[in-house]
Amino acid sequence: MTAPEWRISEWLNSPEPLRLEAQRGRVVVACAFQMLCPGCVSHALPQMKEAHQLFAPLGVTVVGLHTVFEHHAAMTPTALKAFLHEYRIGFPVGIDTPGTGGDPMPQTMRAYGMQGTPTLLLYDRAGNLRRQVFGHVSDLRLGAEIMSLLNDTRMADGAGDDGTDGPACSVPD
Amino acid sequence: MTAPEWRISEWLNSPEPLRLEAQRGRVVVACAFQMLCPGCVSHALPQMKEAHQLFAPLGVTVVGLHTVFEHHAAMTPTALKAFLHEYRIGFPVGIDTPGTGGDPMPQTMRAYGMQGTPTLLLYDRAGNLRRQVFGHVSDLRLGAEIMSLLNDTRMADGAGDDGTDGPACSVPD
Amino acid sequence: MTAPEWRISEWLNSPEPLRLEAQRGRVVVACAFQMLCPGCVSHALPQMKEAHQLFAPLGVTVVGLHTVFEHHAAMTPTALKAFLHEYRIGFPVGIDTPGTGGDPMPQTMRAYGMQGTPTLLLYDRAGNLRRQVFGHVSDLRLGAEIMSLLNDTRMADGAGDDGTDGPACSVPD
Amino acid sequence: MTAPEWRISEWLNSPEPLRLEAQRGRVVVACAFQMLCPGCVSHALPQMKEAHQLFAPLGVTVVGLHTVFEHHAAMTPTALKAFLHEYRIGFPVGIDTPGTGGDPMPQTMRAYGMQGTPTLLLYDRAGNLRRQVFGHVSDLRLGAEIMSLLNDTRMADGAGDDGTDGPACSVPD
Repeated sequence: MTAPEWRISEWLNSPEPLRLEAQRGRVVVACAFQMLCPGCVSHALPQMKEAHQLFAPLGVTVVGLHTVFEHHAAMTPTALKAFLHEYRIGFPVGIDTPGTGGDPMPQTMRAYGMQGTPTLLLYDRAGNLRRQVFGHVSDLRLGAEIMSLLNDTRMADGAGDDGTDGPACSVPD
Repeated sequence: MTAPEWRISEWLNSPEPLRLEAQRGRVVVACAFQMLCPGCVSHALPQMKEAHQLFAPLGVTVVGLHTVFEHHAAMTPTALKAFLHEYRIGFPVGIDTPGTGGDPMPQTMRAYGMQGTPTLLLYDRAGNLRRQVFGHVSDLRLGAEIMSLLNDTRMADGAGDDGTDGPACSVPD
Repeated sequence: MTAPEWRISEWLNSPEPLRLEAQRGRVVVACAFQMLCPGCVSHALPQMKEAHQLFAPLGVTVVGLHTVFEHHAAMTPTALKAFLHEYRIGFPVGIDTPGTGGDPMPQTMRAYGMQGTPTLLLYDRAGNLRRQVFGHVSDLRLGAEIMSLLNDTRMADGAGDDGTDGPACSVPD
Repeated sequence: MTAPEWRISEWLNSPEPLRLEAQRGRVVVACAFQMLCPGCVSHALPQMKEAHQLFAPLGVTVVGLHTVFEHHAAMTPTALKAFLHEYRIGFPVGIDTPGTGGDPMPQTMRAYGMQGTPTLLLYDRAGNLRRQVFGHVSDLRLGAEIMSLLNDTRMADGAGDDGTDGPACSVPD
């Protein structure tokens, strides 16, 4: 079973909208963050910057998802653009579409049942969500998990991948 | 000669406006910052938090001055309030009054001729500006300089202090 | 061509001597260090501790090699044992055999032509040396390179691996 | 009451032995450490290096005391010399004289009743011990306490200082 499509109202640092579905065949690393979340700013986003630098040349897609679920009036698209500029964040960032019916949680965040920010999402080449982690993930573990997905070429080989067999990324918790 | 009065449009974390002039008799530590300035977030503001915790009980006034000179639409009072909440900043923060006549630099920042953020300002009990530093100041040095000003009781003793004699804070650069 | 065997005078944290040759079929991570090398203490050894914790359960062998090439009288086996105890280093550490004929450089260090400490060595399952790096390697990159070697099952599959084809670990510098 | 004299078997980084008594009139900062104590290496000694750099020009004496109470065979004078060289420690370091009658604790450490390493000792100009802290002291606090002692000129003024009145260094815990 593939993962829910991202529901993005606007993409920054990207010439055109990115669709998760269109990444099929590529490993995808996504980081759901808020620009005023201290743990995102001090840890998760610098980690994504290095991940983008190291793994984009290997064909990995690294994106941020701005999942604003609080302080909506502060974390506007305008504020986010200034933030990305000041923090030198160059990878694509999608603004999660605001919730409907008074839901403070934006739609992608709701669809994935995220508990907060930062949340790391790792997808394999077949579009399956292989990891969803709320909070801190060490660099050593993240590097291993990304490479594990990169080396999992079953789909590229045309081999059947029903998405239910053992994880490629098997670094123990 | 005393330092220019702060020109503040709104005070946060304070039941009432603070005036520099009204601090006479107290040592004052002010940090001019922007909420989207990486060096402010990673270094200067955590330093101010500890300075407030350590030195407020000794009678030191610690304040932040939100001197927005870029990305004005992003760093609004609403955004600043969210920022202070998320980063657990409890000391008073004054919003520097926007410049006039198209000046992107706010008025206090202009009056002090600041070069950027963060800028540290240290005032003695007589209201003299004793130090103005753009950029990083080590904790060891800052602790020394604050205590040096605290121990400079000339004014409190009624001794003449014309503000021109040697600095109390003499930690070499 | 396989890598030179380690030349070890004594193993610590290991019930018996470890031979590189005997690790065939396993990925091996070795860190050449000196207990009085600041970069080893602050970065490389903490990195090895986490690597051991994460990857030993996946069948990776993590070892330290104490390659003393200076201050020989200070970095004795007795001193090293105290160091390992105080820094809570639990993975096996081999003491590189001192050089002969007045060579200050120990024998394994000499055989590998190391430039200093720390030096990271990564071996694949076939015993080939796939990476030798003097200095700092980021955690993100190291995690990726270890996992890349883990996923390279050519040898385990019985496929011919002459050790000359492209690297499994292809994270760009 | 003045503090116990240091009992030092050998001074390093000093052309001649240093006596605490001979420092009368100067503020003294001493750090009792062991070269294989992780907290000393990562925090206390870098702090002393900066303290030496900042405050020596102001007339403060900064010294290390190598108080070896464990792993005696590892932390020899020879090993300490190599350590000081590798860690670029340039301030004077005294080797605490080994205990007698089988006491594992060296004599200065015993005389001060220290609980472990690192232990910070701050002395005023009159030779009184004003602070003894086992463990971590923040840079901001240490800077303040050193400057407080520097500004306490009672003794230099000839004013009576019986060592029993309130502390000059009054940064709250």
